[in-house]
Amino acid sequence: MTERNLKLTVAYDGTAYHGFQRQANAQAIQQVLEEKLAKVFGHPLKTIGAGRTDTGVHARGQVINFLTSSVIPAERIPMASRGELPDDIVVMQAEDADVNFHARFDAKSKIYRYRILNAVSPDPLLRRYAWNYRRPLDALAMNEAAAVLVGTHDFSAFRSVNGQPLDPVRTIFAVRCERTRPQIIECVFWGSGFLYHMVRNLVGTLVQVGLGQISVLEFQQILMGRDRQQAAATAPPQGLCLEQVQYEKMEIKPEVIRKVLDIGH
Amino acid sequence: MTERNLKLTVAYDGTAYHGFQRQANAQAIQQVLEEKLAKVFGHPLKTIGAGRTDTGVHARGQVINFLTSSVIPAERIPMASRGELPDDIVVMQAEDADVNFHARFDAKSKIYRYRILNAVSPDPLLRRYAWNYRRPLDALAMNEAAAVLVGTHDFSAFRSVNGQPLDPVRTIFAVRCERTRPQIIECVFWGSGFLYHMVRNLVGTLVQVGLGQISVLEFQQILMGRDRQQAAATAPPQGLCLEQVQYEKMEIKPEVIRKVLDIGH
Repeated sequence: MTERNLKLTVAYDGTAYHGFQRQANAQAIQQVLEEKLAKVFGHPLKTIGAGRTDTGVHARGQVINFLTSSVIPAERIPMASRGELPDDIVVMQAEDADVNFHARFDAKSKIYRYRILNAVSPDPLLRRYAWNYRRPLDALAMNEAAAVLVGTHDFSAFRSVNGQPLDPVRTIFAVRCERTRPQIIECVFWGSGFLYHMVRNLVGTLVQVGLGQISVLEFQQILMGRDRQQAAATAPPQGLCLEQVQYEKMEIKPEVIRKVLDIGH
Repeated sequence: MTERNLKLTVAYDGTAYHGFQRQANAQAIQQVLEEKLAKVFGHPLKTIGAGRTDTGVHARGQVINFLTSSVIPAERIPMASRGELPDDIVVMQAEDADVNFHARFDAKSKIYRYRILNAVSPDPLLRRYAWNYRRPLDALAMNEAAAVLVGTHDFSAFRSVNGQPLDPVRTIFAVRCERTRPQIIECVFWGSGFLYHMVRNLVGTLVQVGLGQISVLEFQQILMGRDRQQAAATAPPQGLCLEQVQYEKMEIKPEVIRKVLDIGH
């Protein structure tokens, strides 16, 4: 029987889960996916995920792949999965991929979005999907500081203190921090990859810029200093969402950047 | 001691509550508000709400009023309330009103928004605040039918079968049904007032128009027939949100209509 390599785009509300990656003692999204998809495909399966989103972090464009011998047409998989998966995990799209496709290793870039609900009286309909920050923030200053991140840098200043000893060099293609509605500031990051907690550490420090506690120059010095102790506290998980994973090398030109940064708008 | 009449704008996530109005055997929003605000104001209080939103229905602009002898400045009330209220009920604004102000009787018009998540694979981050309808809907046809509602009509066809024997005549100033994002259709209703279940019954029937099951002419005939049996089933509560209550008579002119219908966009 021919083995197929399926590529699925998955969206989830991370509120109820201990992150994406399968764990021994806590319910992870990968585990639920593997158990429920096993029912759809009629055999146990092992998934590879593009990004290991953390406890409480959401995704609208996580990508997974797995091998199957099932002959179910790819276009029927989203609907078939809905009958098995809980409401907070949804298969958005499914397609047959090359037999060598690997959701993590083949990813060329990712887009993360972080949403801040900047209000004393936060809209309760957004509370699960944003960080409520009461003090007024200057989104223009945050955007100016964020622009410093574009390029290839050693991001040690923004890595997790518990992070694995990975190469801390990453490339950021584009960033935008913008007040998209009176109560909402959105920060979108498009990069080759991100260290553990990197986006949340960046947002925590950008908020200090938005408060006027750190200047744009000081933000740049923190990046260049490569010392995690100089950056601010990690922003909470519920504001973060993995929006998209790209497998094609995209040309970094204005139209592409504009489209990428407009995501989720 | 002088009694003040306070007017509060309140937002809530209705998911966990049995509607706005205080009830004997179930937790209602009004009850939580009265209990928690009593702690803020230091005395028991009785609120009047502008609209009786149903179980599971949300609000971003519910208005309540109540009498108090407290001297707390109005602008401090939103922040003071946050310390007492749960996360899903938020005081957005507070102001001193005329001693005769009555949140329900003085309301001149209301704006409701209904959100449909029109997709086989619905974004899980929106599932609590939209009705997931899988089959593709024609939003332009829905908008054409909705336009028929503008004006003063007997809305008996769209009232609840359990509705009280109220006068069924209401005036709709403006309506819009529009696909605002690929997965989302929003229907906004601005009117003098709404019968019990009226917006949800309208949406249930507009969806039949969107499916092509009912023509615009048939929709108009249903309205004119004043027979609840001819209209479709009630749309579920989680898509509905009371966006705003107005206490000024607003002039029904294009700029005002445009602004009103753009709410929550």
